[in-house]
Amino acid sequence: MHFADALVRSIKAKESALCVGLDPQLGKVPKFLVERVIREHGETMEAAAEAFIAFNKGIIDAVKDLVPAVKPQLAYYEEFGHQGIRAFEETCAYAKQQGLLVIADGKRNDIGSTAEAYARAFFEPNLFGKFQETSVDALTVNGYLGFDGINPFLKACGKDKGIFVLVRTSNPSSGDIQDRITADEAMSMAELMGHFVESWGSDLEGEEGYSSVGAVVGATHPVQAERLRAILPKNFFLVPGYGTQGGTAEDVAACFNNDGLGALIVQARGIIYAFAEEGGLANGENFAEAARNATLKMKEDVNRVR
Amino acid sequence: MHFADALVRSIKAKESALCVGLDPQLGKVPKFLVERVIREHGETMEAAAEAFIAFNKGIIDAVKDLVPAVKPQLAYYEEFGHQGIRAFEETCAYAKQQGLLVIADGKRNDIGSTAEAYARAFFEPNLFGKFQETSVDALTVNGYLGFDGINPFLKACGKDKGIFVLVRTSNPSSGDIQDRITADEAMSMAELMGHFVESWGSDLEGEEGYSSVGAVVGATHPVQAERLRAILPKNFFLVPGYGTQGGTAEDVAACFNNDGLGALIVQARGIIYAFAEEGGLANGENFAEAARNATLKMKEDVNRVR
Repeated sequence: MHFADALVRSIKAKESALCVGLDPQLGKVPKFLVERVIREHGETMEAAAEAFIAFNKGIIDAVKDLVPAVKPQLAYYEEFGHQGIRAFEETCAYAKQQGLLVIADGKRNDIGSTAEAYARAFFEPNLFGKFQETSVDALTVNGYLGFDGINPFLKACGKDKGIFVLVRTSNPSSGDIQDRITADEAMSMAELMGHFVESWGSDLEGEEGYSSVGAVVGATHPVQAERLRAILPKNFFLVPGYGTQGGTAEDVAACFNNDGLGALIVQARGIIYAFAEEGGLANGENFAEAARNATLKMKEDVNRVR
Repeated sequence: MHFADALVRSIKAKESALCVGLDPQLGKVPKFLVERVIREHGETMEAAAEAFIAFNKGIIDAVKDLVPAVKPQLAYYEEFGHQGIRAFEETCAYAKQQGLLVIADGKRNDIGSTAEAYARAFFEPNLFGKFQETSVDALTVNGYLGFDGINPFLKACGKDKGIFVLVRTSNPSSGDIQDRITADEAMSMAELMGHFVESWGSDLEGEEGYSSVGAVVGATHPVQAERLRAILPKNFFLVPGYGTQGGTAEDVAACFNNDGLGALIVQARGIIYAFAEEGGLANGENFAEAARNATLKMKEDVNRVR
């Protein structure tokens, strides 16, 4: 199914516009899991991968009826080399089995011929035609290289995949580049990127009225989110920055259209490590329950403003 | 050793400012290798990984005395999932054993906390403190997120690692964003990024006078390379675009300083697939010899202008 159609229908069915970030860190996942994998595999990369898989499956089971999508952040898997990538693959496969859309957060970018390889890596089977372990539903990408670095991903968007192009990121220094005003267009770089995204995604609308080409717009910039919403009426916003990074439900309200759609609000740390923040058991045995409770709370909070 | 010092000393010792791109593609590597790995491993991801390892080792052996560095492009390894990353790891380890500097071309970018995970992934051992398979000497990064997304890599540059920040890429659409003139500074986005790179790398100079923070500047933009050279006198340029993408020795001349240093000229396809272009044996048995001949030719061509 067309990516944005699948997303809209899942948001409606689950009455939820949330996305849980799956960002496992060995120093933060529950101690009982780490101790178990070390007993079984020693202090190895394989042990780290097994800890991540067990942790992610627990989170996925706890939130799968509450959110349409999950977003594994590639950096946390790459940290553990090829074993980490195996954990990423198993996580994606399990999430898809459980009916979740999977958005790989890789912020990939390169020249056209190399972007084609990234599109194959995340969206298509390899040359032997047999293996799709790494196939995900959508990927975050960085548009600094312009159209020809994005085009290979647009081709995949024509075949039921989606992308979210970085427009206005949630981090404190995002304005270094993204707030610069362009002399010829009299708009910020982020707004210029927004116009590119609108143009790149204009032929890729689904039946529900949304394009499979979306934008990353941080929850920490509500005024700019409102301007970008006007530039990008038919594009989904993937919105990081809620919770730990300081964004509130009121901050993300401007990311939604009047139909209550058009945005997917992300939280990672505040959900997956909720067990540590909320006086959990010492070894984190209650991590899944704590994640579910945090997700329920966030769902209510965000639904209030959309 | 400080990354830029190691680079300068290797360039002087080998009288070569070249970098060979290790971009293996299953449809392009020699047929005899693919047939061999399929006999041994079937049509599996593992077979693809073994073909890449054998191919890369052959290339590395053929060029190791002619170039200071190699640049594996992550996209081509990610295409084959965790097995592809295993091939990346073995390639990096072998190249380092053979005395080559390894520049991972990943164009990574993210918010600070996630950029820290990328810095650990490419530059530091994991939390168990034992494994460094993926440790490389330098990484390409994308600065669209501004300072705090780059800072974790700068910390690694203080510990003998290096980065190359995308400034002006070699692809046809690079001007979409990078040629935009900023209203307040009256310079292009690429030049603005150049100024950031100069500033980020100013405290990271080595004994040879160069910073371990470099810039990616495409060979296809000689006029802009000259302007960027003036903005970045002490920063190395990693220069893709020579050869297959259309850049010539004359085009890259402006990337060098008067000392004949400050640039590393990259070629991938024109070297590693030279066997196919130059009437090689039908199954590519001569791929290493063809790569060596192409590298020798390029070395002479580039040394002529630096």
